Amino acid sequence: MSGKKEKEFVKEITPRSEDYAQWYVDVVLKAEMMDYAPIRGCMVIRPYGYTIWENMQALLDRRIKDTGHQNAYFPLFIPQHLLQKEAEHVEGFAPEVAWVTQGGQEELAEPLVVRPTSEAIICSMYSKWIQSWRDLPVLVNQWCNVVRWEKSTRPFLRTSEFLWQEGHTCHASEEEAEEETLKMLNEYREFIENELAIPVITGQKSEREKFAGALRTYTVEALMSDGRALQSGTSHNLGQHFARVFDITYLDQDDQLKYVWQTSWGVSTRLIGALIMVHGDDRGLVLPPHVAPTQAVLVPIISKKAKEEVLQKAQELSEELKGLVRLKLDDRDGYSAGWKFNEWEMKGVPLRLELGPRDLENSQVVAVRRDTGEKEEIPFSGLQERLPALLEEIQSGLFRQALKFKEDNTSYLDDYQKLQGHMEEQKGLVDTHWCGKPSCEESIKDETRATIRCIYSWEPDQDGRCLYCGEEASCKIYLARAY
Amino acid sequence: MSGKKEKEFVKEITPRSEDYAQWYVDVVLKAEMMDYAPIRGCMVIRPYGYTIWENMQALLDRRIKDTGHQNAYFPLFIPQHLLQKEAEHVEGFAPEVAWVTQGGQEELAEPLVVRPTSEAIICSMYSKWIQSWRDLPVLVNQWCNVVRWEKSTRPFLRTSEFLWQEGHTCHASEEEAEEETLKMLNEYREFIENELAIPVITGQKSEREKFAGALRTYTVEALMSDGRALQSGTSHNLGQHFARVFDITYLDQDDQLKYVWQTSWGVSTRLIGALIMVHGDDRGLVLPPHVAPTQAVLVPIISKKAKEEVLQKAQELSEELKGLVRLKLDDRDGYSAGWKFNEWEMKGVPLRLELGPRDLENSQVVAVRRDTGEKEEIPFSGLQERLPALLEEIQSGLFRQALKFKEDNTSYLDDYQKLQGHMEEQKGLVDTHWCGKPSCEESIKDETRATIRCIYSWEPDQDGRCLYCGEEASCKIYLARAY
Repeated sequence: MSGKKEKEFVKEITPRSEDYAQWYVDVVLKAEMMDYAPIRGCMVIRPYGYTIWENMQALLDRRIKDTGHQNAYFPLFIPQHLLQKEAEHVEGFAPEVAWVTQGGQEELAEPLVVRPTSEAIICSMYSKWIQSWRDLPVLVNQWCNVVRWEKSTRPFLRTSEFLWQEGHTCHASEEEAEEETLKMLNEYREFIENELAIPVITGQKSEREKFAGALRTYTVEALMSDGRALQSGTSHNLGQHFARVFDITYLDQDDQLKYVWQTSWGVSTRLIGALIMVHGDDRGLVLPPHVAPTQAVLVPIISKKAKEEVLQKAQELSEELKGLVRLKLDDRDGYSAGWKFNEWEMKGVPLRLELGPRDLENSQVVAVRRDTGEKEEIPFSGLQERLPALLEEIQSGLFRQALKFKEDNTSYLDDYQKLQGHMEEQKGLVDTHWCGKPSCEESIKDETRATIRCIYSWEPDQDGRCLYCGEEASCKIYLARAY
Repeated sequence: MSGKKEKEFVKEITPRSEDYAQWYVDVVLKAEMMDYAPIRGCMVIRPYGYTIWENMQALLDRRIKDTGHQNAYFPLFIPQHLLQKEAEHVEGFAPEVAWVTQGGQEELAEPLVVRPTSEAIICSMYSKWIQSWRDLPVLVNQWCNVVRWEKSTRPFLRTSEFLWQEGHTCHASEEEAEEETLKMLNEYREFIENELAIPVITGQKSEREKFAGALRTYTVEALMSDGRALQSGTSHNLGQHFARVFDITYLDQDDQLKYVWQTSWGVSTRLIGALIMVHGDDRGLVLPPHVAPTQAVLVPIISKKAKEEVLQKAQELSEELKGLVRLKLDDRDGYSAGWKFNEWEMKGVPLRLELGPRDLENSQVVAVRRDTGEKEEIPFSGLQERLPALLEEIQSGLFRQALKFKEDNTSYLDDYQKLQGHMEEQKGLVDTHWCGKPSCEESIKDETRATIRCIYSWEPDQDGRCLYCGEEASCKIYLARAY
């Protein structure tokens, strides 16, 4: 047997103010959400992190199905010649894909790409399946893994492999495709705001930032607690770019053969990173109840003389509340109540329920909110009603708090001289005007590291001027440094 | 624009008696369960097939969680040196893996394997995570895609990429690991019998057929309607094979450092193939209600004078029954009722509900069972009670029918001279004795193409003799030709 392994040292959490990036890594590791895998840029999503993803999936999948989509599964591998069909698409993705060159003992005649996104393989099938106007619209989604060979990676935010859903639809008209693109953007917005308690801004990406192969890309952007933005979901109107090169046509009611109009849209495990950075604090995770693996933890506080009675009541309550809330009874031996409090706080459980001998006498539990620290005594008889309501209060409280932060950290700026300093000190979102020229966008990025997160309005204020060149503005944008 | 695409010719279904393999392919293509992808041995799982998989997943995932397991996600890629650690494992899998040799623009220093199964990557993490007896048992499962570079493939049954779940557990003792292995085997048996309505046999694999790296492999085998067996799920007691090479140790309560005992177990999209081949008939699919995407289809039968009333009532019923059963209202224009009947029969929908003008007068629908063709009039007021009950009758009827087929096609044989003819003509399962020598197993396979599906008892009959060599038997086995 090999030498005794050393117990790993469990690091405390670095305060955000000291080193935000280290705080993030401390939280994801210490809460056992993920671990680094022995493959460059890849991670393991541990059960605590994966359960959050499962909860997100269930809520978003419901929305995807309620809007008429069905799930399917397309192959992991894409033959090189298919990826190369759409010129912008291959240019955007080829530099960052993993290549399979050997299968079993044989060298492959044509290398295969591990999908970085599935437009190419899906379009090749749609070309075969779609014949008539009766076949439209095609509304398909898939949940899967994708691989992008990233140079620098960060848990959940940017990893070589990640999990996501990608919707791929075909429509008979440009209007329908645009409507679908915006409908799914709005589903993302509602899902992220209602379930993850993260306020977002939505808008259109600039040409520079749009999806490789899209006509237009719309985005959902969120503001992290360090003042940087995170692109949290995108919805693309693909126009007929892919339809033309993959020959996806249908015979219309007027007997004309026409190209379809397409969309694609996706969100990924990156959203877990957003959750952490929007709600977390120096004690660790703070999870919104809608997606928390454990919504409430019940901790019996035991004294020598009241041990059995307290434990028995805790078990009774745990049975009674099963199915109503995701409740965990922490009756582990050998850990103090205080130790347990710390652990569940670090893991972001929204509500702690304490049950000690005196509570037993008073027929109540003490509920402690993770987000505000507020305590509340709840009689046993009121738990069934109060717990779900209290969880909803926490959910909406987290949203309000994040919304306030976002509002406090959004500034209107029309003086470019102030942008550099602003980006260094205050960060946050800058609301401003842009002329639309790529050269201004590029200069801003080079000089301040801020990028256009989205164009949120095509109606500039009267006399609105481009922040960079001072010429007449064509649109209103949000600028920020981003992940 | 390119030339007009030709409408694909929709083939009729070849009768099973004429060409069973062609029947199978006709069914999966015509029912739009899958399509061939432009990558060797890969398929697309279309929405109708994928929804069956989603229904299976939900039911099995519930069982996996109810037995204390949690889901996680491990990387798609395994570095070559990790795959090579366990000698039998690498020998078994290396010949059939896909190799990633290039990431982005750079050649990789060490090639990566696309996971054919995840023992190697998971064990490398367990070695890091497990320290103390308090960390045990580790009960983890993942749902994912895996790749095995197969030479000859068949939709769902054997494809280069497939979807599955793989459980990976660690325990403090050999007994606990064996208990887990058998517990999950039993979960598979119950899941396949209760939800897929497929009767199975269970037992142990011979050394030749066991999982590469396991101490013992247990299997769930089902009999297809052409008399061939299909391995439908496996559960492995890995012993300490992986623990020793990956150094997965824990400090026990007696302060000794010990290796863990491990298990792994999986079922895959192959089960969809089993569903098709056990229940399907010459008109197409027959789906058990528990996993059918649509459990009942409501077809309004319209006459000129009663069109609106019938359609309106159909919509009312469809609303009323939503949530109770997975019901689809087929009110498409331009298709005759007869055409719709054929389509839904081919797609295996368990129950058809017809609503015509006369039914409307009588306040009833006519329910027609897909499995038996039996008709039954159900008054509107009785639908809420009768529909779920009728679906359960279909579910259990399918199981009984498949069980009878299995029993009718299982024969006891103790004369090897008869085996060859039996395998050519009757096929099915052969119940017999074996001495345990690999040479007898191999000769039987070479001479008759039958393999040992499982050892179902270690207590041979008194005077039981090996079917092949006539020497004293050590066990009772089932032989069959298999997929």
